[in-house]
Amino acid sequence: MADDRRVLLTGASGFIGRHAVAPLLECGYEVHAVARQPADVGDVVWHTADLLSPGGVESLLERSHPTNLVHLAWCAEPGTYGSDPENLDWAAATLHLVRRFGERGGGRAVLAGTCAEYDWSVGGPYSEASTPVAPRTLYATAKDAVRRVVEAFAPQSGLGAAWARIFHVYGPFEPATKLVPSTVLALLREKPAALSAGGQVFDFVHVADVGSALAAVLDSAVEGSVNIGSGTGTSVRTVATTIGELMGRSELLRFGAMGEDRPPSPPVVADVRRLTEEVGWTTARMLGEGLAESVEWWRSADVAASA
Amino acid sequence: MADDRRVLLTGASGFIGRHAVAPLLECGYEVHAVARQPADVGDVVWHTADLLSPGGVESLLERSHPTNLVHLAWCAEPGTYGSDPENLDWAAATLHLVRRFGERGGGRAVLAGTCAEYDWSVGGPYSEASTPVAPRTLYATAKDAVRRVVEAFAPQSGLGAAWARIFHVYGPFEPATKLVPSTVLALLREKPAALSAGGQVFDFVHVADVGSALAAVLDSAVEGSVNIGSGTGTSVRTVATTIGELMGRSELLRFGAMGEDRPPSPPVVADVRRLTEEVGWTTARMLGEGLAESVEWWRSADVAASA
Repeated sequence: MADDRRVLLTGASGFIGRHAVAPLLECGYEVHAVARQPADVGDVVWHTADLLSPGGVESLLERSHPTNLVHLAWCAEPGTYGSDPENLDWAAATLHLVRRFGERGGGRAVLAGTCAEYDWSVGGPYSEASTPVAPRTLYATAKDAVRRVVEAFAPQSGLGAAWARIFHVYGPFEPATKLVPSTVLALLREKPAALSAGGQVFDFVHVADVGSALAAVLDSAVEGSVNIGSGTGTSVRTVATTIGELMGRSELLRFGAMGEDRPPSPPVVADVRRLTEEVGWTTARMLGEGLAESVEWWRSADVAASA
Repeated sequence: MADDRRVLLTGASGFIGRHAVAPLLECGYEVHAVARQPADVGDVVWHTADLLSPGGVESLLERSHPTNLVHLAWCAEPGTYGSDPENLDWAAATLHLVRRFGERGGGRAVLAGTCAEYDWSVGGPYSEASTPVAPRTLYATAKDAVRRVVEAFAPQSGLGAAWARIFHVYGPFEPATKLVPSTVLALLREKPAALSAGGQVFDFVHVADVGSALAAVLDSAVEGSVNIGSGTGTSVRTVATTIGELMGRSELLRFGAMGEDRPPSPPVVADVRRLTEEVGWTTARMLGEGLAESVEWWRSADVAASA
């Protein structure tokens, strides 16, 4: 069994990658996990490797000879990834990886796309089949460009390839400057949490659910784009208010302290019919439950950090 | 002067690349020409290098430190380039090259796109500003994908970048299986020239004009897509008939011998207003003149080959 199903998981030490290990193991894969720095991510065969280095992709495939691929590695530095020139290197490395993986007989791949590929000026829910694509950042443009090439390449090469358009992820290991951790950490320290006016609506999905959905997509026969989201839109205000209530410190929330909101865009929400009907994945946490888990995790992490 | 204007020309031994050398020299550039195999292409600094090899791009930029870039290298094997998996490698290498060129202070680049990026189901002339893009092959999809990334990257990185959508090129060094050389060579050998019914209309442009236009685009301030064509549509039948008349062997033309035409698509013709008005390039050969030159070149090449 393990010999037949070896999955290469790139970006394995990242926010989402860490949470993809357990679901892939549960699906019966031998997990070959790779990142630039060593990390303890569970019961995997670990490879420390830089996919951007010359020959890095070939060397890694030689060592892991995977039957399957979950490719999450990409530049993700908070605040700068949208315009990072490294987006070009990750696009290049991804095309290189996909070609070499297919050439070596790789069977099926899931690659991380983004909800930012969609045209955010139209109203949601955003459908893989019918919502126009209009990426606004270099990051989203590079992701979209890779998707176009993979979609043309996969059918002619016998490679199965799904493109996971991931919506707004939160949960353990999220960069601490983002909405959920920054709010939780402020309230844990009994400091005011500076927030926008909170009107923007996103599709918040717990990172453990994203990991589980990625494994399900890999084990499905879905080709092309598939949204990974909860299917439910929630405002920033509701997320922060829920955290405030869970922690009993709602009086520390400062809506509008980050300045006036620009008029909110239409809600950025996933149409999850493909995910639920074609992939058959349904076990998303409710937002309150996922936020409660996150609060506990940050509480533990914060205690550990100050110990 | 030469120190200030060093152009790196990739694909320099290719069909178009060979014809870009003289115009770039005329514009005052020191030409650093690169291809995988050595070739005699004129008064250049030659670099034999494989841009697809690990570290190949970095090494080449280190050796040539160009101020300008004309990037033509890509897979181009007649008959197979449309679906060649190497399209992924060339897309990756191009993104890599553009990023590194920009990072090293490169000023302005012209990259080879293709008229096959356009939606060929709509009528021409095809306009950079208004004709939809709908690539049908892996080749055209990969070109289109790279263009999207470069267009997002260039403005934020201070790089000037033009994307040359090249139409149907003919002339010396064209692969011998293509319309013009195969017809000329058949007639030279007094053999029947097997042709389609000839109804399809393309924008045929002489390769020396393409080389000249590319140099003009490099020296212009045009950003983004610019068509490289004659602006005139000509049917395959007219091209072959003109060759027959030039060679006095029209009776050897066999229209329809390659089977019934599928119903011809709408004419594939460039809107050249951007090229003429913004680049200021106008000196295209008339088709009869270009074909006459081509006939003479193939006659000499054929004599040389049989000598």
